[in-house]
Amino acid sequence: MDAVLRQSKAVCPFMRNATAAGLRAMSTATPALTSPCGGAMSKLQVLARRCPVMGKAMAIQSARIGHAAAFPGVSGKAAMSTFPGHAKTAKAKLHTSSAQEAQAVDSSVFAGRDKVQLPPRLPTKQHASANPTTATHTCPAGAHTAKFDYEGFYARELEKKHKDKSYRYFNNINRLAKEFPRAHMASKEEKVTVWCANDYLGMGRHPQVLKVMHETLDEYGAGAGGTRNISGHNKHAVELEQTIAKLHAKEAALVFSSCYVANDATLATLGSKMPDCVILSDSLNHASMIQGIRHSGARKIIFKHNDVQDLEEKLASLPLHVPKIIAFESVYSMCGSIGPIEEICDLAEKYGAITFLDEVHAVGMYGPHGAGVAEHLDYEAHAQGRPRGTIMDRVDIITGTLGKAYGCVGGYIAGSAKLVDTVRSLAPGFIFTTSLPPAVMAGARTAIEYQMEHQGDRRLQQLHTRAVKEALRERDIPVIPNPSHIVPILVGDAELAKQASDKLLQDHGIYVQSINYPTVPVGQERLRITPTPGHTKEYREELVNAIETIWTELGIKRTSDWAAEGGFIGVGVPDAPADEPLWTDEQLGIAEAARMLLQAAEAERALQNRAASGSALTGGLTERLLEREMEGLRSVSVSA
Amino acid sequence: MDAVLRQSKAVCPFMRNATAAGLRAMSTATPALTSPCGGAMSKLQVLARRCPVMGKAMAIQSARIGHAAAFPGVSGKAAMSTFPGHAKTAKAKLHTSSAQEAQAVDSSVFAGRDKVQLPPRLPTKQHASANPTTATHTCPAGAHTAKFDYEGFYARELEKKHKDKSYRYFNNINRLAKEFPRAHMASKEEKVTVWCANDYLGMGRHPQVLKVMHETLDEYGAGAGGTRNISGHNKHAVELEQTIAKLHAKEAALVFSSCYVANDATLATLGSKMPDCVILSDSLNHASMIQGIRHSGARKIIFKHNDVQDLEEKLASLPLHVPKIIAFESVYSMCGSIGPIEEICDLAEKYGAITFLDEVHAVGMYGPHGAGVAEHLDYEAHAQGRPRGTIMDRVDIITGTLGKAYGCVGGYIAGSAKLVDTVRSLAPGFIFTTSLPPAVMAGARTAIEYQMEHQGDRRLQQLHTRAVKEALRERDIPVIPNPSHIVPILVGDAELAKQASDKLLQDHGIYVQSINYPTVPVGQERLRITPTPGHTKEYREELVNAIETIWTELGIKRTSDWAAEGGFIGVGVPDAPADEPLWTDEQLGIAEAARMLLQAAEAERALQNRAASGSALTGGLTERLLEREMEGLRSVSVSA
Repeated sequence: MDAVLRQSKAVCPFMRNATAAGLRAMSTATPALTSPCGGAMSKLQVLARRCPVMGKAMAIQSARIGHAAAFPGVSGKAAMSTFPGHAKTAKAKLHTSSAQEAQAVDSSVFAGRDKVQLPPRLPTKQHASANPTTATHTCPAGAHTAKFDYEGFYARELEKKHKDKSYRYFNNINRLAKEFPRAHMASKEEKVTVWCANDYLGMGRHPQVLKVMHETLDEYGAGAGGTRNISGHNKHAVELEQTIAKLHAKEAALVFSSCYVANDATLATLGSKMPDCVILSDSLNHASMIQGIRHSGARKIIFKHNDVQDLEEKLASLPLHVPKIIAFESVYSMCGSIGPIEEICDLAEKYGAITFLDEVHAVGMYGPHGAGVAEHLDYEAHAQGRPRGTIMDRVDIITGTLGKAYGCVGGYIAGSAKLVDTVRSLAPGFIFTTSLPPAVMAGARTAIEYQMEHQGDRRLQQLHTRAVKEALRERDIPVIPNPSHIVPILVGDAELAKQASDKLLQDHGIYVQSINYPTVPVGQERLRITPTPGHTKEYREELVNAIETIWTELGIKRTSDWAAEGGFIGVGVPDAPADEPLWTDEQLGIAEAARMLLQAAEAERALQNRAASGSALTGGLTERLLEREMEGLRSVSVSA
Repeated sequence: MDAVLRQSKAVCPFMRNATAAGLRAMSTATPALTSPCGGAMSKLQVLARRCPVMGKAMAIQSARIGHAAAFPGVSGKAAMSTFPGHAKTAKAKLHTSSAQEAQAVDSSVFAGRDKVQLPPRLPTKQHASANPTTATHTCPAGAHTAKFDYEGFYARELEKKHKDKSYRYFNNINRLAKEFPRAHMASKEEKVTVWCANDYLGMGRHPQVLKVMHETLDEYGAGAGGTRNISGHNKHAVELEQTIAKLHAKEAALVFSSCYVANDATLATLGSKMPDCVILSDSLNHASMIQGIRHSGARKIIFKHNDVQDLEEKLASLPLHVPKIIAFESVYSMCGSIGPIEEICDLAEKYGAITFLDEVHAVGMYGPHGAGVAEHLDYEAHAQGRPRGTIMDRVDIITGTLGKAYGCVGGYIAGSAKLVDTVRSLAPGFIFTTSLPPAVMAGARTAIEYQMEHQGDRRLQQLHTRAVKEALRERDIPVIPNPSHIVPILVGDAELAKQASDKLLQDHGIYVQSINYPTVPVGQERLRITPTPGHTKEYREELVNAIETIWTELGIKRTSDWAAEGGFIGVGVPDAPADEPLWTDEQLGIAEAARMLLQAAEAERALQNRAASGSALTGGLTERLLEREMEGLRSVSVSA
């Protein structure tokens, strides 16, 4: 039997690395791990309780024997101090990181029972009993029989959020369809300009979308009335899924309550069903993918954000025949970076993986039909209706939302007919939930179809984005550089970011939510601005002037300040690679006009540079282009 | 070091129970576990790969060394054949069942990597390499370097669903707001009567709901435009959550994309955050709760459906101070049974647990304000506006839907302010998703408020339910008895149930979806009928006649057939306890009328009994009451 045990040691990652001396050292209780209410735990006990096998066994044992010693036949402490946990195996962790390692920025949200920092939880009473000498001296009488204090627990969790400044105060923002991009606050009289919504193209107030929704509401009522299987399947679902499949040039599509659910349900289902599946996940992936991977129970390997070399090394370490999913995004919403889709498709092909691409922040916004970045990368082919062999064609699973550029709510996946049918047939998050309302599905389909035929909104959105970025840079405001439509302004401090957001709202009637930990890492707090076709010059000037004022009032660092420190996350970095927008001048159809204006604009810019830096915003190249092009683009987008 | 290993054996649940002989027997590869493409696995290897610690370690090892032997220094087979898995510890499983044990009926949907039946998955190639003598003899050349066949995998999964008759064909049902409860199929000309939607009260087509939705759509547009934190929080969310809190007499409420998400996110968050939390779950709980518990990583204990004694035994086995959540439902939607809410609250108090009550199929339907079964149990107190100290007041967390009786879409939780704020602050499924559209939230609030003030719809629904059940019983059609508004008709065979549903639709223009495995256990297949206030006498007669015809055509068992076999799940069970509806005659306000009609009705019934059994439906007591009361009730529900 000892041979058996020796061999078991050989395969347990914790036991293999442990030395007898190390185990002895860890089995001594340390003061840091003594609970405020009695009971000391050894470090090894703490580790042991995190082991999915042993933690469960310990819980069952302690439950069975109540307050008696945790392990019959072995003294509680001794038993746990020798237990083969696995938290110390650094190599294993590297390749199978838990969710909080996957995305450091979301660790407080995801941190669960297996958090790495100590102490992760209070020792429970059975340990106190097992260590009577240390157990009760700090504890009020009767504590052993006290019920758990649920309200006290909630209060402590909330207190933690307040302390680390991650507690969230929601702003009451009522976006007005007829005054886009304006909204009223709690009072109808108090109006503000919204500069941070994800209704990127204003489709949420588009007359055609609203018309179809009104008609559908009248004809088919408010709700679907059931799950897709039980009376909730209808022509709106059929037509919407057909439209989505056509948009992405895939065989089929499937609609979910949200893209959070689509990502979660699809990854959880595929990852749990495919034998030995490994999921390779970009380190900046969205919470929904992190949760889906976690829920799949599949092995997860994190690769560095947009790092194709790192991804390849990780793929190469896996056997070819093992099923692998590479999960990543096209536009990363908080920094605006864009994933290397083509290179990832190449790697997937080479190493026998499938690609899972989240285009949530890109659908409607890129490509000749608004199908996203993957479509944009073969702009001409798609514009000419030749999707076969393109990058988008090579992506296996595309997920998207109906709640951002399409202005409604809901999410979807698109892919091969068999893939979609498999998810449809197996994913609890799809099967056991009420369908989206008919009016929502009809509205979303209308928005997609409109954007498939009209380029005007997304072009104008891009021009406005360029104009905002240019104007901010002219004021030395630290825009985090990126090639997309996201305008992240670095603040670098949670308290300051909230103050800046509050001041924008209260002093200037401008709503830009501050983005703090856990959505971004501590120290990278920012304001995230999302221009739309409706954010015309007047709004832009208001915004830039307000930010300028607040940056001065609060003494927030400017680009030159960051540069003086050597730069930070792309801001003020010397010799940074040029921040070329994904939408080229040619694709925006303004290259010709640009060339004509270039000379005049540069002459004017030279003049501006000589003027005082605090001068009124007179605008750069994009500004001039916008003035010339906007009306033309707009008329295209509304007619046709 | 051997002492250490001996102790590790003492705490590993698998190793503790294993004998050397048993391990040896399990370490021999069996033909049943040989993959079609080479590679044999021992039973122990199969078990080992399911261990969360060892499975991961094995995957990492095999990834590192590619196609070489899985465990350096130990022959692959030997290493795995001695690995301490845990799948054999029957006692542990009993108390910490995996999802498929939680609800046998959903096992195919939930069955993931840890399924118990063999063979759960194909052996991977490194095993083939480690066992060269058995590895390749059935395998085409080059299979070792083949990529995973994703499309083949999907095809096999779908084939499984076809084979076990659980593949789902969706019916295209377009419910018509102006012709409730009628709908058209794919073609507008092809109309049917819907008898299985969960728009129980027809609120999805209620003029007040639609009016508010139209107005909101015009004023605030189609979508919310962001997450609750980033521009998606608005007065519609505030007002809806206030209304829900008021409905359930709780301090606060929180709205989610769906109640699937509400249940999943809330249980996952609380279960993972509360130290050592144990979740006690009714064996018939809905998929969303099963998933939430699974995602929490907390210990789960299943108690027998509605079995308070079993629950108490399980609670009593746990230390008092450990946090515990009892998760259960009020109305179980597939069988119509009702949870013992008061008794469970008593137990929760006694053992220091909190209660998590899913009222999804009850909100709008029970209680003087439609707050659900918990409210209904103290009908008078709530009718008089005295919620304190009632059963509903004692329930800690109530979850509900806006997508069934309230006719829209979305879900919620209600509870203490601190609980709700904690879930709001920590649950990824709430934080990282787009808010519901303003019009949906406004429509749902209107529906709740309307139903708080009007009893007519739910009373009429109950009367229609009684009438349908009575009429079916008179025809010897096997209604599964229950005290709620659900009318489950037992078929007991997947193929027959689908045929009956198809025939109803094709021959009779009546839509009742068949409910097959995995939604109900194999052998318990049924038709699930949900009457509404709109299902008046003519519709009922059509339905009952159609079912009568089909039962004869297909030779489906009647109640008397089941009785002849001794009865089954309440059908045809001799001396079964009386099936008293939760809504009493007094609560329906018809007790007086009933008393007056009783004598006449009984006389008539005696006459009917003498007539031929195939006679036209002339109706029983409820039928007569309905005729008398319906118009009155309806006028109440429409006016006021």
